[in-house]
Amino acid sequence: MHVRSLSALECTKLLSAGRIGRLACVSEGRPYVVPIYFTYADHHLYAFSMPGKKIEWMRANPYVSVVAEEHGPGRDWKSVIIDGLYEELPRQDDRDHAWSLLSRHTDWWEPGALKPVAQPLSYHSDHVFYRVIIEEVSGREARESA
Amino acid sequence: MHVRSLSALECTKLLSAGRIGRLACVSEGRPYVVPIYFTYADHHLYAFSMPGKKIEWMRANPYVSVVAEEHGPGRDWKSVIIDGLYEELPRQDDRDHAWSLLSRHTDWWEPGALKPVAQPLSYHSDHVFYRVIIEEVSGREARESA
Repeated sequence: MHVRSLSALECTKLLSAGRIGRLACVSEGRPYVVPIYFTYADHHLYAFSMPGKKIEWMRANPYVSVVAEEHGPGRDWKSVIIDGLYEELPRQDDRDHAWSLLSRHTDWWEPGALKPVAQPLSYHSDHVFYRVIIEEVSGREARESA
Repeated sequence: MHVRSLSALECTKLLSAGRIGRLACVSEGRPYVVPIYFTYADHHLYAFSMPGKKIEWMRANPYVSVVAEEHGPGRDWKSVIIDGLYEELPRQDDRDHAWSLLSRHTDWWEPGALKPVAQPLSYHSDHVFYRVIIEEVSGREARESA
């Protein structure tokens, strides 16, 4: 496998095409990592979630890390890792904006939006909208052929 | 989507079938999340990595979180989240054991094992072998049809 770093433009391209990431947050020196659905726009990742552990943790400590990946063909892969800051979007116009970005993709998949009790996703529900302010971004690509 | 919690047995089954996870570690209140290749055995996740940021961080603070997932069919998904402790395996017999577990799967994929300079993976190289002692595990499943 040949491994190289991705350029800033290549990282942006992967994030723009991405839907699923894994977000890590921290409380009292311990990490917590979960899958999230996101949309990239204007150097931010937009997302939403039901209230719960990760929202509580990010409200108390806004530092987050997110990884997004692309796999294939074969064993080829690319990954982009972000260091960022959680920013909640409680205002209705910000929620509208986030929702307009997120709803562009109809085939989305959002574990964080769902709880183990059947609950339809709704714009008018208790979902917390937030974005990740990207502070640092880096990426790698591995290819079987040079 | 109907969401339910996974039983301990279902979590173990997903981990046993899993190859790719995302591991988060912490330094000075900030998280860092990366893709890893792992093998589950005896209530531990076994893995290896080139020396680097995540190894340094885990040596300083052994608390880690790992998420593993299964996707499909359709929008169905399962995820398992682990709270655990990093344990390095410097002894040759422990490395042999870890390698025997990891090398059972020939189609593996390991971003953490590769650096942006072409470098063949080798058992005799500088790779750090480690395992994650699982302290807590929980899982969820979402299905479109009940």
